[in-house]
Amino acid sequence: MRTTTGWKISGGTTALERVQLERRDLRGSDIAVRVDYCGVCHSDLHAVHVMDGVVPGHEFIGTVTELGSAATRFAVGDRIAVGTVVDSCGTCKNCLAGEEIYCTTGWSPTYGGPDRVDGTMQQGGYSREYVINEKYAFPLPTGLDPAKAAPLMCAGITVWSPLRKANVGPGSRVAVAGLGGLGHLAVKFAAALGAEVTVLSRTPDKEKDARALGATGFVVTTDEAQVKQAYGSFDLIIDTISATHDLDPEILMLDLDGELSLLGVSWEIPVNNLLLLIGRKRLSSSATGGLPATTEMLAFAAEHGIEPDVEVLPSARVQEALDRLKANDVRYRFVLDLADLDQTPAQH
Amino acid sequence: MRTTTGWKISGGTTALERVQLERRDLRGSDIAVRVDYCGVCHSDLHAVHVMDGVVPGHEFIGTVTELGSAATRFAVGDRIAVGTVVDSCGTCKNCLAGEEIYCTTGWSPTYGGPDRVDGTMQQGGYSREYVINEKYAFPLPTGLDPAKAAPLMCAGITVWSPLRKANVGPGSRVAVAGLGGLGHLAVKFAAALGAEVTVLSRTPDKEKDARALGATGFVVTTDEAQVKQAYGSFDLIIDTISATHDLDPEILMLDLDGELSLLGVSWEIPVNNLLLLIGRKRLSSSATGGLPATTEMLAFAAEHGIEPDVEVLPSARVQEALDRLKANDVRYRFVLDLADLDQTPAQH
Repeated sequence: MRTTTGWKISGGTTALERVQLERRDLRGSDIAVRVDYCGVCHSDLHAVHVMDGVVPGHEFIGTVTELGSAATRFAVGDRIAVGTVVDSCGTCKNCLAGEEIYCTTGWSPTYGGPDRVDGTMQQGGYSREYVINEKYAFPLPTGLDPAKAAPLMCAGITVWSPLRKANVGPGSRVAVAGLGGLGHLAVKFAAALGAEVTVLSRTPDKEKDARALGATGFVVTTDEAQVKQAYGSFDLIIDTISATHDLDPEILMLDLDGELSLLGVSWEIPVNNLLLLIGRKRLSSSATGGLPATTEMLAFAAEHGIEPDVEVLPSARVQEALDRLKANDVRYRFVLDLADLDQTPAQH
Repeated sequence: MRTTTGWKISGGTTALERVQLERRDLRGSDIAVRVDYCGVCHSDLHAVHVMDGVVPGHEFIGTVTELGSAATRFAVGDRIAVGTVVDSCGTCKNCLAGEEIYCTTGWSPTYGGPDRVDGTMQQGGYSREYVINEKYAFPLPTGLDPAKAAPLMCAGITVWSPLRKANVGPGSRVAVAGLGGLGHLAVKFAAALGAEVTVLSRTPDKEKDARALGATGFVVTTDEAQVKQAYGSFDLIIDTISATHDLDPEILMLDLDGELSLLGVSWEIPVNNLLLLIGRKRLSSSATGGLPATTEMLAFAAEHGIEPDVEVLPSARVQEALDRLKANDVRYRFVLDLADLDQTPAQH
């Protein structure tokens, strides 16, 4: 086994514990990766309460340090990106279609699930080294800043997928609800795809930011008159709000055949089916994306200069990052710089 | 004004009252229609409780008896079909696109809403005469039995629309939940479109009927093992169940990118968004259909010999029809024969 250092959930609080952890010895197709930057996802915050003993982190940029005997895609020193999927069966119809995240046997998550070979718990990217089958790593395209690119691998692909599935392009009217890690990337991607983008937000103060990100419209959702004026206006709403909320106003803001893509809610929520019925509308959701979609997203981001807006913190400040994320105090994604794990920690 | 006879909701019970009622004098584009057969829709049952004084009926077949001065589409004696829409603005983008049921100013229903010109309450097809702008009437295609065709105009177009929207055809795997007025037509249409059709039902006894209608699969939804075996099996589920029910098993029976078309529920219902997320699935609903879609549906029905399975009753037995519909005691749609309205009613 290999040994590295990381930040482990301990006792259900955001005060993660710096620990030594083991990584598996390289299998033939594996590569060892020095983790340089790892994004802090809202689901990491959730994991704190339900995954004691686990190291979070599923959107990171690293540098290849060692190759397994059969690994051929990368060279030592290559910058790579890793997202939410590190393995899948590879043989089911969804895997064969490049939809590994929808593997019918269950995708293997970057942290918090068992390794498919030895059954050990996968530990995530809040650590200095990761070992991964090279098939599930992506070359970081030239031009993307490694510190900024990490959130593309979860937040980015999560919003890219529904935009592409809905064939968003010039003429599309897209609204984005919730201007956080996912939302700000949805605005950037949708605008770069040629859509007319509107941000839906409770906070009038965010209008300036929304326009800077590429939005041309802004609806203050606490202002009933503004909401009513927007009824029937959008083809697609990307809703990234990670709390239960009233979907009726959003459905009413969709035009005929419009789609509400609900990305921040992973539980039961009331839906007024009459509102879907009277406009032939639909409610959808989706996970991150398979290997081809992720490759496409990275290439598009590089081509259009789309990088997440991030605040980079040394990994020792992970608790601050989680606490401020919980308070929505980040524009728009925290990224941990794992370099401090090479040093002996300061004694308290 | 013109005078005719019909069956009016009175006192919130299924005992409709035989009454004289007025129809408007013919406007230029109007036609007068002798109503021959009118289907009994589940929404008529709902109307009994909320539309006192109204004559129900929004799926009927009739015979043209008189033409307005500018009416050109039909000749006296033509058989025509009327559905749920009798007027719309005609100028909004949805009307211009042939989606009159989604008129942005609100479609005018066949009964229970105001006439767009004079504001009087529209009275429906449980009557001997109807007056309608000819634009909203359809020629009944040759080959369709007038007594059987009536339910095509609501139940039929309601299920036709999502089947067509989802491009159902050979290779499609369609499931139909609820084998009533809508459901039995969904099975017939989907099978005729070339899909592989499965019926989802609580009642094992319905399997024989389901297969006779064109289904090749049958899942007893109270049998957990059968449901689990069907996980991931369908591209589209047409759910016609008109009561709140657990959607989770249906969503789980969809394959990647599958769609649950929820047609029988027009109120708030809990939806487990995680189940949509993990398979990139969607929940949709829709109303009946616009003029082009309805014309297409009628032509397809005639070409493929698709007729509703009906039980025809003299209109004086409307209470029996409503009560038995409420008890799900009909295979699969009641049709009222309005000819008895020409006679003086028997004295009690």
